[in-house]
Amino acid sequence: MSRSAVRRIVLAARPHGRPQLSDFRLEEAALPEPGAGEVLLRVLYLSLDPYMRGRMNAGRSYAKPVELGEVMTGEAIAAVLASNHPEYHEGDVVLAGTGWRTHAALNGSALRKIDPSRAPLTTRLGVLGMPGFTAYGGLHAIGKPQPGETVAVAAASGAVGSLVVQLAKIAGARSVGIAGGPEKCAYLTTELGCDAAVDHRDPDFPRLLAAACPAGIDIYFENVGGAVWQAVLPLLNDHARVPVCGLIAQYNAVRHEGPDRLPATMREILSRSLTVRGYLNYEFLPDYFDAFLRDVGAGVCEGRIRYREDIVDGLENAPQKFIDMLDGKNFGKVLVRVARAET
Amino acid sequence: MSRSAVRRIVLAARPHGRPQLSDFRLEEAALPEPGAGEVLLRVLYLSLDPYMRGRMNAGRSYAKPVELGEVMTGEAIAAVLASNHPEYHEGDVVLAGTGWRTHAALNGSALRKIDPSRAPLTTRLGVLGMPGFTAYGGLHAIGKPQPGETVAVAAASGAVGSLVVQLAKIAGARSVGIAGGPEKCAYLTTELGCDAAVDHRDPDFPRLLAAACPAGIDIYFENVGGAVWQAVLPLLNDHARVPVCGLIAQYNAVRHEGPDRLPATMREILSRSLTVRGYLNYEFLPDYFDAFLRDVGAGVCEGRIRYREDIVDGLENAPQKFIDMLDGKNFGKVLVRVARAET
Repeated sequence: MSRSAVRRIVLAARPHGRPQLSDFRLEEAALPEPGAGEVLLRVLYLSLDPYMRGRMNAGRSYAKPVELGEVMTGEAIAAVLASNHPEYHEGDVVLAGTGWRTHAALNGSALRKIDPSRAPLTTRLGVLGMPGFTAYGGLHAIGKPQPGETVAVAAASGAVGSLVVQLAKIAGARSVGIAGGPEKCAYLTTELGCDAAVDHRDPDFPRLLAAACPAGIDIYFENVGGAVWQAVLPLLNDHARVPVCGLIAQYNAVRHEGPDRLPATMREILSRSLTVRGYLNYEFLPDYFDAFLRDVGAGVCEGRIRYREDIVDGLENAPQKFIDMLDGKNFGKVLVRVARAET
Repeated sequence: MSRSAVRRIVLAARPHGRPQLSDFRLEEAALPEPGAGEVLLRVLYLSLDPYMRGRMNAGRSYAKPVELGEVMTGEAIAAVLASNHPEYHEGDVVLAGTGWRTHAALNGSALRKIDPSRAPLTTRLGVLGMPGFTAYGGLHAIGKPQPGETVAVAAASGAVGSLVVQLAKIAGARSVGIAGGPEKCAYLTTELGCDAAVDHRDPDFPRLLAAACPAGIDIYFENVGGAVWQAVLPLLNDHARVPVCGLIAQYNAVRHEGPDRLPATMREILSRSLTVRGYLNYEFLPDYFDAFLRDVGAGVCEGRIRYREDIVDGLENAPQKFIDMLDGKNFGKVLVRVARAET
């Protein structure tokens, strides 16, 4: 088969810690036949997101795990090749949970049509998609930033964090971004308007973070966990809010060596009247989605809200890119260009 | 001096872990002279509460620590012996932050007058006082129990927990009390109306708790931390709420041996969309205090809401009683009878 053959990536083995390339398997497959009500899709862009690491594990999480031999889950932008659903026609572009594959036949009721003229297609997987709404919902529904407050954001150059830091500024707060390495930190202050950026790889990170937050931290947008949380904890002000959106620093951990850091976190939660709140973006859809599309959509179209994409070509490169993302090697929203729209 | 002499208990040394009797010192003192605007008080009942353990440590907490040589802080019911304040007269009974002593001269503006005819005096230090409002505010403002939900309560026979389990029933929830030992557990089901009671000292505690919560836990009222939290964590339902009111199991800890239990807690916060929220009761006073006095006051007067007191006689016995309370040896709200009202 040619490079444009029907291909998919399945979970070959459950990772023990950091995923290996051998945990994934690229398979060729027959072009699926769309059944009644189904739409045949060709994937254009696949989104790679940290939450997928959790789906590779067996056991309890907020969604059921990917089974061994099953296609890796994921959202994509796809073009309609053929349709047995009245609402979709060849050439339509849709948002679809295709998983990691080049083609899929899905029920039309599970798709959302995209107007390609409104914003670049890829934004629907990033700043105007699930990651963007995760930023918007978490910051506004849980964080509730007030003018003059300090908002610290982990993984601030990533798909979610890069919008949080900008929304914090729009809300009138002081915005402090945390990222890995000087290049990302420079991007935070020069491009995204952060009042300060702190490199979590710097050996002096806790002291630098404290210096960047002279009035403490009122909202900490948690996307990382681990050492970043340990540096944030003593800086949290009374009644600080901590939306917990991700914990990328611990997704690959196998063992958690002592000391036990839970008592110190619980003590601060108690003595500082902290709110620590995990969430999935879905729960805020009814109350916040219209405002998100209006506010962030306009900001993106007018260039006031910036975003950055980190795109790799070819479905076969998705596993390595995914592993790199978990290591913090990406710079911006990670996407796989599976096919060009015109091919 | 006689037993009725003016006495006080000061912090003699900062405890290293579990407090010792030698960390406290009983001192005799001259009867204070009330200055302008001040009221001379004779303490009738002193309240002993777990939060006082935190005040014995140096360093950051939600209130400033007791200094070495300073009188231990605490709330009391006291009788007015003499007054230089227009609103108070000899024989009045007041609620006052006297600390651990037999007599105090305090500014009248810091006192609250009590009507002794409305409810037993001691209830103003317990079910109708700070501990009661801590229960009411935390359960209603953070927990927000819905009919049919399961509310699990740590330290459920204590001053705060014993009201939480009853308020949970009143709200139509299933009420599961956690306490130490069969006597306290029997009290929870036979006297306080708990649907189930679980003994955290039972070696099989995690399994027993799971059996007592067949539909999981929607609200966990945290007063303890440690091993109880570890047993609760896997039972929490999506969107469970955890008001954190106290952490008595870790107040005396010096070291926290590994493994590091923080990552597992953070993972559940994220994957179950949990809300973990520390608080001090004060923050809910404006919104909830009137409702508290009305609801709980009526319940206590009519006997629908039960409470239990654990009273020791004599200020000199306060340190040992306090140490016992931290060890879970009390049964109900701990009070020290410092003087009889009629003496």
